[in-house]
Amino acid sequence: MTKNNAGNYFEDFRLGQIIAHATPRTVTAGDVSLYTALYGSRFAVQSSYQFARAIGFSNAPVDDLLVFHIVFGKTVPDISLNAVANLGYANCRFLLPVHPGETLSASSEIIGLNENSNRKTGIVYVRSTGFNAAGAAVLEYVRWVMVRKRDDAAPTPGQLVPALPKVVEAGDIGKACPPLNTAAYDFTHAGSPHRFTDYAPGERIDHVDGMTVEEAEHQIATRLYQNTAKVHFNQFTEGQGRFGRRLVYGGHVMSLARALSFNGLGNAFHIAGINGGRHVAPLFAGDTVFAWSEVIERLELPDRTDVGALRLRLVATKNQPCGNFPYKSGEDYHPAVVLDLDFWVLIPR
Amino acid sequence: MTKNNAGNYFEDFRLGQIIAHATPRTVTAGDVSLYTALYGSRFAVQSSYQFARAIGFSNAPVDDLLVFHIVFGKTVPDISLNAVANLGYANCRFLLPVHPGETLSASSEIIGLNENSNRKTGIVYVRSTGFNAAGAAVLEYVRWVMVRKRDDAAPTPGQLVPALPKVVEAGDIGKACPPLNTAAYDFTHAGSPHRFTDYAPGERIDHVDGMTVEEAEHQIATRLYQNTAKVHFNQFTEGQGRFGRRLVYGGHVMSLARALSFNGLGNAFHIAGINGGRHVAPLFAGDTVFAWSEVIERLELPDRTDVGALRLRLVATKNQPCGNFPYKSGEDYHPAVVLDLDFWVLIPR
Amino acid sequence: MTKNNAGNYFEDFRLGQIIAHATPRTVTAGDVSLYTALYGSRFAVQSSYQFARAIGFSNAPVDDLLVFHIVFGKTVPDISLNAVANLGYANCRFLLPVHPGETLSASSEIIGLNENSNRKTGIVYVRSTGFNAAGAAVLEYVRWVMVRKRDDAAPTPGQLVPALPKVVEAGDIGKACPPLNTAAYDFTHAGSPHRFTDYAPGERIDHVDGMTVEEAEHQIATRLYQNTAKVHFNQFTEGQGRFGRRLVYGGHVMSLARALSFNGLGNAFHIAGINGGRHVAPLFAGDTVFAWSEVIERLELPDRTDVGALRLRLVATKNQPCGNFPYKSGEDYHPAVVLDLDFWVLIPR
Repeated sequence: MTKNNAGNYFEDFRLGQIIAHATPRTVTAGDVSLYTALYGSRFAVQSSYQFARAIGFSNAPVDDLLVFHIVFGKTVPDISLNAVANLGYANCRFLLPVHPGETLSASSEIIGLNENSNRKTGIVYVRSTGFNAAGAAVLEYVRWVMVRKRDDAAPTPGQLVPALPKVVEAGDIGKACPPLNTAAYDFTHAGSPHRFTDYAPGERIDHVDGMTVEEAEHQIATRLYQNTAKVHFNQFTEGQGRFGRRLVYGGHVMSLARALSFNGLGNAFHIAGINGGRHVAPLFAGDTVFAWSEVIERLELPDRTDVGALRLRLVATKNQPCGNFPYKSGEDYHPAVVLDLDFWVLIPR
Repeated sequence: MTKNNAGNYFEDFRLGQIIAHATPRTVTAGDVSLYTALYGSRFAVQSSYQFARAIGFSNAPVDDLLVFHIVFGKTVPDISLNAVANLGYANCRFLLPVHPGETLSASSEIIGLNENSNRKTGIVYVRSTGFNAAGAAVLEYVRWVMVRKRDDAAPTPGQLVPALPKVVEAGDIGKACPPLNTAAYDFTHAGSPHRFTDYAPGERIDHVDGMTVEEAEHQIATRLYQNTAKVHFNQFTEGQGRFGRRLVYGGHVMSLARALSFNGLGNAFHIAGINGGRHVAPLFAGDTVFAWSEVIERLELPDRTDVGALRLRLVATKNQPCGNFPYKSGEDYHPAVVLDLDFWVLIPR
Repeated sequence: MTKNNAGNYFEDFRLGQIIAHATPRTVTAGDVSLYTALYGSRFAVQSSYQFARAIGFSNAPVDDLLVFHIVFGKTVPDISLNAVANLGYANCRFLLPVHPGETLSASSEIIGLNENSNRKTGIVYVRSTGFNAAGAAVLEYVRWVMVRKRDDAAPTPGQLVPALPKVVEAGDIGKACPPLNTAAYDFTHAGSPHRFTDYAPGERIDHVDGMTVEEAEHQIATRLYQNTAKVHFNQFTEGQGRFGRRLVYGGHVMSLARALSFNGLGNAFHIAGINGGRHVAPLFAGDTVFAWSEVIERLELPDRTDVGALRLRLVATKNQPCGNFPYKSGEDYHPAVVLDLDFWVLIPR
């Protein structure tokens, strides 16, 4: 019996199947430092223990996307080792804060399967959950991914396209954020005077700065998340492949764009949920990432007077500054767009 | 109102203005590991908790230049986002040790302004201070920087060239170093037998080794310091600019040269103050940094028998070994010189 | 007297000489994060405090090779600064677990000397020991290295080729692993169902994945270990040398291959000893490392029912997938092989 992991193919999945993933991972201050060094994130809540404690956190929480990437990474060997493409995300909710010292593990449930008409691939819908050491869920999200079949002739293992919410519900927003003493929130230290009510739907913000990605950087990041997807690391094989080069992990682009968005959204300190997201085009080392945001909605949260939620569209481009907010013409994305992310952030009222 | 930060232009500053900077930052063991990995520093006091505690520190202090870079990084969005050049440093004093777990914040006072005759730029003199969580100053320094005007026709916002000390005073040297039990100082573990009195003014030391800089390295370092200066990160824009490429953060060169200087100055464990410094020429990825030092002065410190101070000139070059101590011909620097740093170190007596 | 370290030459060593090395180093969670980020290692015992504690460790131990590299790095300035080649390892034994917070130091004893017939170089055999803060040995190994003479005419400083064990003895295996409660060992979280008895001598495992090395990555790693060997860092000098480029530290290849070996050896959580190893060919940035393993022997350990030992040959190649297990034709290595490592791992019974 071969002992290496060939990963699951489309016909290996079953509706309702639950997969507990390897490798549990203790998140430490070392991971936080690396995250800062890889993206340059400047949100005060995650950067300063003192700032976080002053407003009501037990300690500085780990960046939300670091939690996301670590949980995501665990799912790769079981879910997407034979994936052709990561198609989308839905109903991603951050449920508890994660602090340095917490140990994360993950499991996934197969909630949908849909074979493609060519019978060579199928779409797997999976709800993945990250847990802390006490077994409480810290993060839950759905993603769907196109996975190869091992054998084109294999019967389809199931057929169900799950109904997925377009938007994370208000009642699910903010669970990872304790009640805050916003009187202790220092807007000067946070780097921006702008609060919840200063942002209006339709408002667009150019995040101005650009960040060029190096091979070593995205590899170091993706390994930090123990993400084993082959396309990010193996130039020997990728050099002979579709693009001739290694592909940057899509989550790396998310984190770069999020870090750039500090410049204009400095108080939007917490990603409470991700409504949907699309990796519109691949990114490669040498590309420079720019980003802009649009405020889609401003939501007062039930029973919370400390923070409100902004629904944002965060668009990242490559090699294209965002002063003109490049996005779509009709259904077609501007050729420079690499990421289209729809998510909720919390911001002090 | 635009919410992104365009930075201050020369005419935006005022004499006596005090600017509290974003983002407070808790320094952790993760930052220390990254600092070691980026520069390969080998000073025992910073490397070993056990060594540091044995001689009287409460724990291993964070490398002095790591503290400097973090504080410096905080000042960038307010002071030098529109800078043409970072011109110099003066009277930099390390006032308290910083240990992992400490949270740093920073503020600056505008102490001088001097418009250039072309009226397109002016020089801003700023005294920046880094604070710990208790609000005590851990670092204070003056730098001056040439900043663009937004509008050439704007009236000059003030005119004062401050008097600055050429050298940090003896009474200000050593404040960040507790009284040491030098009997417990293990010279073998420290990697050098040479004490205070073994060094003599005029002595020159070639640090021998060379270190080649990669784009990923200086970007990771500069983001670790949350330094947002555009020239270090954005190849898209810099590719069209003056040099056609990203510029390495000057502080990265300082840290490389300091780490190289271990080879010959292994017991010079603490930078107590920086008298002045000049980034003589830009450094780019692919360049190899070499360094040499000259002992300028040997100073017994008032009331201290544990350590003495050496005033050093640390010269870094690119792509030029330093066996011949390249420096100046008359007023002109040797074309290979990139850094000329004048500073005080502490060393056991 | 020159104060920089020129390193020892062959004629400087003496049989029986003991050298205490600089720089003691506290290993932290920051180092562990960097190690994960540099290699992507996924062994649950090292990754999760919770997993490690559940089975009987006081905390997650630091990766064995991280300990090895840190100890090795300390020996470089005294032993191999003037080395031509690192020739081999023997009798490497891990004696105590190392946890974050532990401070490591190292010393070496010269146990053999053998001048080469050309009188330009000689082989130095050295037994190096790593110690924790309490002074207990955590690691001990022999290596031999070819070192230049300063002066060809200098008399040989001694002549002894030590007898070295081909294999670490059973009684020396497992000292760094406390008695484990294997009932609490979660094979799902560990990522593999395969136990001690599932592996059989002669079995070969392709580890499938490839990892491309970047200059920034191996430099960051090698500096993390405070390894100062010149060939890894200085493109200015190496560009004029034998290979025209920087050489990747051999230990970096060991760690890459070990991390890749998770795919097929997920429960082989601990390197208990290294019997021998050879860096067959140099690795350079841009090369992609692949690996495969062969089970050489399966050993029940005296007095242990929790874990058994597998003796493995781990072979790493460059730019050559290992599905066909490339190794040797007669005495000659396959041209793609870069590493041939013979070691003991522990695995639950």
